[in-house]
Amino acid sequence: MLSISRLNTTDNTFWSQLNTLLAWETVSDGVVIQTVRDIIHDVRLRGDVALVEYTNRFDRRAIQHIEDLRVPDIRLQQSLTTLEKNQRKALEKAAERIRAYHQRQLQDSWHYTEPDGTVLGQQITPLERVGIYVPGGKAAYPSSVLMNALPAKVAGVKEIIMVVPTPDNIMNNMVLAAAAIAGVDRVYSIGGAQAVAALAYGTMTIPKVDKIVGPGNIYVATAKSMVFGTVGIDMIAGPSEILIICDGQTDPDWIAMDLFSQAEHDEQAQSILLSPDAAFLDAVQDSMNNLLAQMPRADIIRTSIQNRGALIQVKDLAEAAEVANFVAPEHLELSVAEPQELVKKIRHAGAIFMGRYTAEALGDYCAGPNHVLPTSRTARFSSPLGVYDFQKRSSIIFCSEEGAHKLGQIATTLAQGEGLTAHARSAEYRVLQGMLEGMDK
Amino acid sequence: MLSISRLNTTDNTFWSQLNTLLAWETVSDGVVIQTVRDIIHDVRLRGDVALVEYTNRFDRRAIQHIEDLRVPDIRLQQSLTTLEKNQRKALEKAAERIRAYHQRQLQDSWHYTEPDGTVLGQQITPLERVGIYVPGGKAAYPSSVLMNALPAKVAGVKEIIMVVPTPDNIMNNMVLAAAAIAGVDRVYSIGGAQAVAALAYGTMTIPKVDKIVGPGNIYVATAKSMVFGTVGIDMIAGPSEILIICDGQTDPDWIAMDLFSQAEHDEQAQSILLSPDAAFLDAVQDSMNNLLAQMPRADIIRTSIQNRGALIQVKDLAEAAEVANFVAPEHLELSVAEPQELVKKIRHAGAIFMGRYTAEALGDYCAGPNHVLPTSRTARFSSPLGVYDFQKRSSIIFCSEEGAHKLGQIATTLAQGEGLTAHARSAEYRVLQGMLEGMDK
Repeated sequence: MLSISRLNTTDNTFWSQLNTLLAWETVSDGVVIQTVRDIIHDVRLRGDVALVEYTNRFDRRAIQHIEDLRVPDIRLQQSLTTLEKNQRKALEKAAERIRAYHQRQLQDSWHYTEPDGTVLGQQITPLERVGIYVPGGKAAYPSSVLMNALPAKVAGVKEIIMVVPTPDNIMNNMVLAAAAIAGVDRVYSIGGAQAVAALAYGTMTIPKVDKIVGPGNIYVATAKSMVFGTVGIDMIAGPSEILIICDGQTDPDWIAMDLFSQAEHDEQAQSILLSPDAAFLDAVQDSMNNLLAQMPRADIIRTSIQNRGALIQVKDLAEAAEVANFVAPEHLELSVAEPQELVKKIRHAGAIFMGRYTAEALGDYCAGPNHVLPTSRTARFSSPLGVYDFQKRSSIIFCSEEGAHKLGQIATTLAQGEGLTAHARSAEYRVLQGMLEGMDK
Repeated sequence: MLSISRLNTTDNTFWSQLNTLLAWETVSDGVVIQTVRDIIHDVRLRGDVALVEYTNRFDRRAIQHIEDLRVPDIRLQQSLTTLEKNQRKALEKAAERIRAYHQRQLQDSWHYTEPDGTVLGQQITPLERVGIYVPGGKAAYPSSVLMNALPAKVAGVKEIIMVVPTPDNIMNNMVLAAAAIAGVDRVYSIGGAQAVAALAYGTMTIPKVDKIVGPGNIYVATAKSMVFGTVGIDMIAGPSEILIICDGQTDPDWIAMDLFSQAEHDEQAQSILLSPDAAFLDAVQDSMNNLLAQMPRADIIRTSIQNRGALIQVKDLAEAAEVANFVAPEHLELSVAEPQELVKKIRHAGAIFMGRYTAEALGDYCAGPNHVLPTSRTARFSSPLGVYDFQKRSSIIFCSEEGAHKLGQIATTLAQGEGLTAHARSAEYRVLQGMLEGMDK
């Protein structure tokens, strides 16, 4: 029997119980920090030599030549051609849908001209070179390759470098096939903090990139946060979460399985169900108990559900939306009759899955939107990974003579107020001399 | 006489000299880190009591009651009404232009419907509550209040909380007036790591915010990086920089003063001039020597120019653009005859100032675009502060029955490939049963 927390919003201590349930902070382990700092320092200092040493040590490999770190392009193509037909078709279809959705995120430069001829604008350019970290070993996710590489590709990034550790020299065929489909330019079989350091600072073999994205273990996450500033990084992800709002009319087995689909990711994952219908909460709990035994990852699911899951009874759907906004979940399912009404009340969520037919799992693979989403309540202030993460903006200011004259007067007044004389003088030079004398100053 | 580095791209070691010139890394001082960690911990634990203690100690104040940390709204209005007329007009005009430019950055939600009835989209919502850190004491910049608050306001942020330390209880009138003009909702006279901690975690008096933006000293920057994840933050800014490309036809005094206007910010600021015309580089150097004595901040300018400035002779303007792209400067001036041609070659810069009349200082105050810009070569992967920093996106997925059927088959195939059975099952539930039997699997 699964023991799962049951909360009720009518309880006086509900909000503090909810806070306790949601609490999650990364452990800042001094040993990890020092290890990662040393590895980064070493890779900056000794480059490829250090990279080969760490790879041989941590991934139990026997690399002799630097070139062996590169996965040959032909190997990527082979992965694709040898892939089971059905898998290849699924990957290609998923890529096509992800590409189509992300194309809508492309932003264009714009300019406008003021009456005096001054032009203002925003110039959009892609990042030049991006590194994608893909975990190796057991948790090898081809879908992550697509979700990280395709937005960069759509943005117009010139070169995408993928790194993936291959412990014991075992490569995941589907991961390499996904790289081929996504149009990754080069793949290196390296991982860990050493791969992050190589991408951030460059070695003779690995080119320095402008941004590193993609999930990894605590060493990878720590290394990413340390190289931030030298390169861009994506958000550091916490455990995966789902929050489901159900009116009680969806098949309880469906909802139970949706909760499981988060829980099976790892023991820290969080699955929460909100419903105004107490009997439905009971029914879902029964379904979970019936279905658990069929799950190959039952142990992970059990731990996750028991430690971090909850069934919460709410007064009504409006209150459910309020709780959801407080949680700001990574994945939010609105399994209700009128999701288009309920969604209007939602202000904070990474991705919103509307209606009884939209299983969260569809978004993980192939609906089109990205599956890299803000976790741990960060959807209050951040967004899914997207094309906008691989584009950047430059402001454009092109003053006409008249414009410089007018703006110069304002700038001079404010610069003097801030005690910045060179700023004031630099603006004044461009104020027409004759007019300057008539200025109200 | 100013001694300023002179580089030439024809020099064999030019690129390594340039790298050395640009090198800048924040010092990660163990003492600062520990101090900030302690302050944050203390404010989380003891809230307002700790906040008052630190404020009294660090800002030499004698606060007895928590309420005295709040700057009354009436005080903000008084600042505005007592401000010198010309200054008020300049601030209001600047605010109007900044607002107009940033309104063009507003992003709208979008949706599209696929032939089978599935709806995909991106929902845009503003952040709810934002904290703005404004430095107090000597370096009090009203323009920064406008540049940080107005994009949040335009984005639709409901509540803007400003914190500004007031050492010895001295408030800067122009800063408070700028807060009134920008529509800041509440101002607290607190600063340092304690203010950042209060905004990130909330106290009985200070409300918890979703994001903290604005510049500060090393304690503030360290505190911001430590609370990142709990709240959003803007980029940690390095020293200010300008890179000017000039064809040699602009008045050398103008260019010298533009270089000074960066240099006067602080000793670490970086001012670089590129020109194909060696005689012009000499002329600018002469101008700098002549103008320096007139500058109240001559000592700061001298240190900055001598330690971090450079005059670089390039082959031609195309090569200048190449150097500029390598540097990815915060501010880039194209002081040339045809800036609209040269700008096409620019891929990386925070803000681009085109033509001889566009002094960089105009962008600092009133042209319209933001003056919070990526520094230290981060323009390779990041953007000016903007409305987009105060909006966030949620993906929308609303599958029709037919859509769930089609997508479910792809998702199931990929989930099985990744060994995630609950994902596969959750998708399969929504695949129509009759059709499921005919599936190619």
